[in-house]
Amino acid sequence: MAKREIKVYSDLSGANAVWADKIRKLREEKNVVMLNLIGSPGCGKTMLLEKTVERLSAKLRFAVLEGDIETTRDAERLDKLGVLVSQLVTKGACHLSAKLVHKAFVDLPLDELDMVIVENVGNLVCPAAMDIGETAKIAVLSVAEGEDKPAKYPRLFREAKGIVITKTDLLPYVSFNMRACLNDIKQINGTIPVIKVSAKDGSGMEDWVKFLTSFSEKPR
Amino acid sequence: MAKREIKVYSDLSGANAVWADKIRKLREEKNVVMLNLIGSPGCGKTMLLEKTVERLSAKLRFAVLEGDIETTRDAERLDKLGVLVSQLVTKGACHLSAKLVHKAFVDLPLDELDMVIVENVGNLVCPAAMDIGETAKIAVLSVAEGEDKPAKYPRLFREAKGIVITKTDLLPYVSFNMRACLNDIKQINGTIPVIKVSAKDGSGMEDWVKFLTSFSEKPR
Repeated sequence: MAKREIKVYSDLSGANAVWADKIRKLREEKNVVMLNLIGSPGCGKTMLLEKTVERLSAKLRFAVLEGDIETTRDAERLDKLGVLVSQLVTKGACHLSAKLVHKAFVDLPLDELDMVIVENVGNLVCPAAMDIGETAKIAVLSVAEGEDKPAKYPRLFREAKGIVITKTDLLPYVSFNMRACLNDIKQINGTIPVIKVSAKDGSGMEDWVKFLTSFSEKPR
Repeated sequence: MAKREIKVYSDLSGANAVWADKIRKLREEKNVVMLNLIGSPGCGKTMLLEKTVERLSAKLRFAVLEGDIETTRDAERLDKLGVLVSQLVTKGACHLSAKLVHKAFVDLPLDELDMVIVENVGNLVCPAAMDIGETAKIAVLSVAEGEDKPAKYPRLFREAKGIVITKTDLLPYVSFNMRACLNDIKQINGTIPVIKVSAKDGSGMEDWVKFLTSFSEKPR
């Protein structure tokens, strides 16, 4: 596959809501779904996306915006798999702003896309409070983090339209009480879909891709 | 052991630096070390502290301030072990402010303590930028998070006076390149001590306690 240049964007200031609304309007005009993946550093967002590329490419046309404080490592990982990806570098900021996302979003070939997946900066707190004009926030939680995280960091789990519990291959080696976790989630956001996946052994990946495609109203 | 009441504090506003300086001054006056543990949600800070209590109690007199956005779960876990602990609840804020820490700090029996260990809100980003008048920030990173975190979240690893790599018992089950991680750390903060521990199987715990006690100049 030909080596493409990965686009790199850095942060800008400005009123967040204005930029979020611009993204929302453009999304609706172009009929593009935008999903905002939020979770702790190391919860497995990038690996989940790596393993999603082939399966999701068979269903719809999508691009990825990779949010990080520093480095272009995550975009490089996805670029290798042939998916269209840009890197958003916040240079210290703990979340993606709508202005930075907008800058990258308008540069995408939106007429040729059904979906844009944004991987936010690894942070279970701040990105949950930031509107980037997305269709939905998706919470990502790994079993290595422990079952108490929804109760201790409720805002994300309350605002999300779906929760992915990742790294289920580690369940035999960590103390993660799935029942307690699902119970806490039910208290916070009763009807939310919860998908359990292991990007490593592939279990649950079909459910995850089905969940993603459910957001798109124009499958290819 | 008699059931004690866990003190609970909530956040307040105010200029951070003023409160950080007040803590620093009081710490120096009372000759109390204050360590600020910072790491992602679920990196194992609380379990590390649980397993530290017995070993450290034999060396010096300490208390714990537990930072969380919501719930008093972590303080309850430590209270069961007989350590003096207060819960600091930020009610949505992504880090502990110096003012909130000060409120809890001054209520501690400082004349009877050598050390206060603060467990910050689970967040690899924001607490690194917040001075709470601590003696030192300690970075906590679990092997489940991946070796790329120091490079992607450099500020904490640059400002810390020590790095604890936790959950080493999971090394056989996760792809964590220790050499690459240590190499990145060396680039960011050449001389920093790195301690590898498993709170679960106990390996490295002696090194960790030795590292903690090295901060205190008045061991019991």
